[in-house]
Amino acid sequence: MLCYTNQPMWILLLVMSWQLASSLPAPHVNGERLRRDLEGLSQFGRNPEGGVTRVAFSEADRASREFVMGLMRDAGLAVRVDPAGNIYGRREGAQKLPALLFGSHIDSVPKGGNFDGDVGSLGAIEVVRALKEQKVLTRHPLEVVVWTNEEGHHFGSPLFGSRAAVGLVESAELDRRDQEGVTLAEWLRRYGLDPARIGEARRNPAEIAVYLELHIEQGGVLEKEARQIGVVEGIVGIRRWTCIVEGFANHAGTTPMDQRQDALLAAARAALLVRSEVRAQPGRQVGTVGYLRVEPGARNIIPGRAEFPIELRDLSGAKIEALAARIFSGIHRIEQEERVKIACQPLSYDAPALTDPRLREAIGAAAKEAGLSTLALASGAGHDAQAVARLAPIGMIFIPSVGGISHSPLERSEWHDIANGAEVLYRTVLKLDRMF
Amino acid sequence: MLCYTNQPMWILLLVMSWQLASSLPAPHVNGERLRRDLEGLSQFGRNPEGGVTRVAFSEADRASREFVMGLMRDAGLAVRVDPAGNIYGRREGAQKLPALLFGSHIDSVPKGGNFDGDVGSLGAIEVVRALKEQKVLTRHPLEVVVWTNEEGHHFGSPLFGSRAAVGLVESAELDRRDQEGVTLAEWLRRYGLDPARIGEARRNPAEIAVYLELHIEQGGVLEKEARQIGVVEGIVGIRRWTCIVEGFANHAGTTPMDQRQDALLAAARAALLVRSEVRAQPGRQVGTVGYLRVEPGARNIIPGRAEFPIELRDLSGAKIEALAARIFSGIHRIEQEERVKIACQPLSYDAPALTDPRLREAIGAAAKEAGLSTLALASGAGHDAQAVARLAPIGMIFIPSVGGISHSPLERSEWHDIANGAEVLYRTVLKLDRMF
Repeated sequence: MLCYTNQPMWILLLVMSWQLASSLPAPHVNGERLRRDLEGLSQFGRNPEGGVTRVAFSEADRASREFVMGLMRDAGLAVRVDPAGNIYGRREGAQKLPALLFGSHIDSVPKGGNFDGDVGSLGAIEVVRALKEQKVLTRHPLEVVVWTNEEGHHFGSPLFGSRAAVGLVESAELDRRDQEGVTLAEWLRRYGLDPARIGEARRNPAEIAVYLELHIEQGGVLEKEARQIGVVEGIVGIRRWTCIVEGFANHAGTTPMDQRQDALLAAARAALLVRSEVRAQPGRQVGTVGYLRVEPGARNIIPGRAEFPIELRDLSGAKIEALAARIFSGIHRIEQEERVKIACQPLSYDAPALTDPRLREAIGAAAKEAGLSTLALASGAGHDAQAVARLAPIGMIFIPSVGGISHSPLERSEWHDIANGAEVLYRTVLKLDRMF
Repeated sequence: MLCYTNQPMWILLLVMSWQLASSLPAPHVNGERLRRDLEGLSQFGRNPEGGVTRVAFSEADRASREFVMGLMRDAGLAVRVDPAGNIYGRREGAQKLPALLFGSHIDSVPKGGNFDGDVGSLGAIEVVRALKEQKVLTRHPLEVVVWTNEEGHHFGSPLFGSRAAVGLVESAELDRRDQEGVTLAEWLRRYGLDPARIGEARRNPAEIAVYLELHIEQGGVLEKEARQIGVVEGIVGIRRWTCIVEGFANHAGTTPMDQRQDALLAAARAALLVRSEVRAQPGRQVGTVGYLRVEPGARNIIPGRAEFPIELRDLSGAKIEALAARIFSGIHRIEQEERVKIACQPLSYDAPALTDPRLREAIGAAAKEAGLSTLALASGAGHDAQAVARLAPIGMIFIPSVGGISHSPLERSEWHDIANGAEVLYRTVLKLDRMF
């Protein structure tokens, strides 16, 4: 305050109010329009209790894709769908350069929410609309992408579209059957796509300069720390197994307790073991058994067969391996004690993926210029960005999730946080356009 | 041997061989014909891996009922179907007396076997055929019955037909929905029956002298003790609950282990608790959790909701109550420790039912005259006989189950044991015709 002591008070006030205003500059994106689009998208697959069930390849998913392609065209983007079902909307740049790619997904888990994926997909379209309105022409071409089947509800292999874009979908995966016995190839055909051409979904790394994804945090860290923007340091690795327990189905009234080979009870012990082993180690690793299916599944029959998944996540691949070893040794003990067979097949592995320091820096600077507070954090959830990391440097922008709730009808982000996220995406795209 | 010492050896041999032959008198029933009928019935709902899935009200059940009604008519029985779907085949007697009622059921559990219910139903028809061939006219009218939905696969309330016959089906039960959301009333309508007339299925006790049921043991006691015929002392009581666990569905990657409210893990602990409490007491009581359904049921979502049944069986109703009290106290502990809600609704209760001493005596004498060894034992499985016990004195004849296996495609009884069972049924019917 020393330098102002000889100045009249009104100059002091003017300077202070200018500083305040400059810390909250006017946004480039239209938060109200983005909200309307998100509310429009939430109609597809809406559940009576709130949220949506819009699993990939469902009728709701198909209809929502048409809706989003309409928004893309309105934003002046040239739309194409690749053989994996990924939707690309392209806007040419002033120079012949590789594209700045940004987007997310619009499929959901069963009984999921209205923000996971949707915010990043429609936020990307809003950025292009804002650039168009403001007549900003970037040096690089821009590509908005909506990836297919990020959640992997069918086939237990998520990030389908983004993995196809980096050549990680092998033909055997297309023959895998989902719960209804339908192959992925058949689902693609029902989408009017040709599974034989899946290789053509692969992108040439020379065509893409960077990949950027805006997403809800899906955890409670930003809310707890009262920060507006998360600058993602990396995405945890995820390893998945499907386990089959073979016991012996028998009559629930006539089979003495000591002669049973109950598959459900063996699976129950295995599920509890996953939790106790994961908890036994220090750190932020998580482990989940998301379902348990029992056959024959009648109340008067001892369960003869059970199926359950195991999913382990951590930023360290080595830690996941060490945990798995302890869990499978415990499962072997359960097998012997319960006189059942338990076979766990590895299903898929998404290696941990680190974001690029240049993109983290750009996101941090963009947030600062927009007057928003930031926090560096890891993503406990998997994202398409981790597949795309094989193709180009990646960056991720997180916005807070209310109560840390996600994959639930109660999933929610505040509308002003969503607008903030889109604004940071807008500013980051322009920064990267200059940097790369 | 003393009295034979002065006789020539050939007389001794003749007497011994006569004694041997007299211990295995020629049967009245035709075991080969009964086998052909059972093999014919096994075509309806046959599974690729063996056994049948012929749950009540399925297409397979409907077709098998037509098959059985055909056999009844061929046996000279007058066939009628009551408003509960029970099939009765009547043969008049020489005198105006209440009927001797005998039979069983032909519906199965999912992935069940070819003998549970079928042996008693087709064995009863074979008895009538044998009487007809041998031109035996009984004093009492005879009624062969095939009860509807003994297994209770839909609605979780077994013995539907026999309970309707004793007036134990209330109108609320008809509105109960099964897993597909279809009410029992609707299933009856699809069978061409009028649910509004369910009361007319009730039998007048004055019309029925006794009820007799031939059945496979479904346990391993007769085989272990090497006896041919089981004389059933009583049928265990069965109490059933359906439990709903309300946890909180959330993202499996972003929700720390100590912040989860995992419905599957709480249900897993409850299922293991049922076993440990049942095992903690001396005696032959059994307890089973036959399925576990989880929502949303995806590998990347923490389970928010789970449903599982509890079934307890014992010959003592008081013991079942005491066990239940210990289990629900443990479930309350789990609720608190797992921060979930667990609500267990009582579903149905079949009280223990004792067989009538006169019928046990008649069955024992019939087996002895047929040269067959017997064992008195309890039935761990529920049977229509336990409902009919409210209407008339009941008796049950068991035959051995190979390996004690039932409610499984591997369920099996030897063909000669089945023929023995039908022969004992034949002889018991004639004894009761004289006794009552």
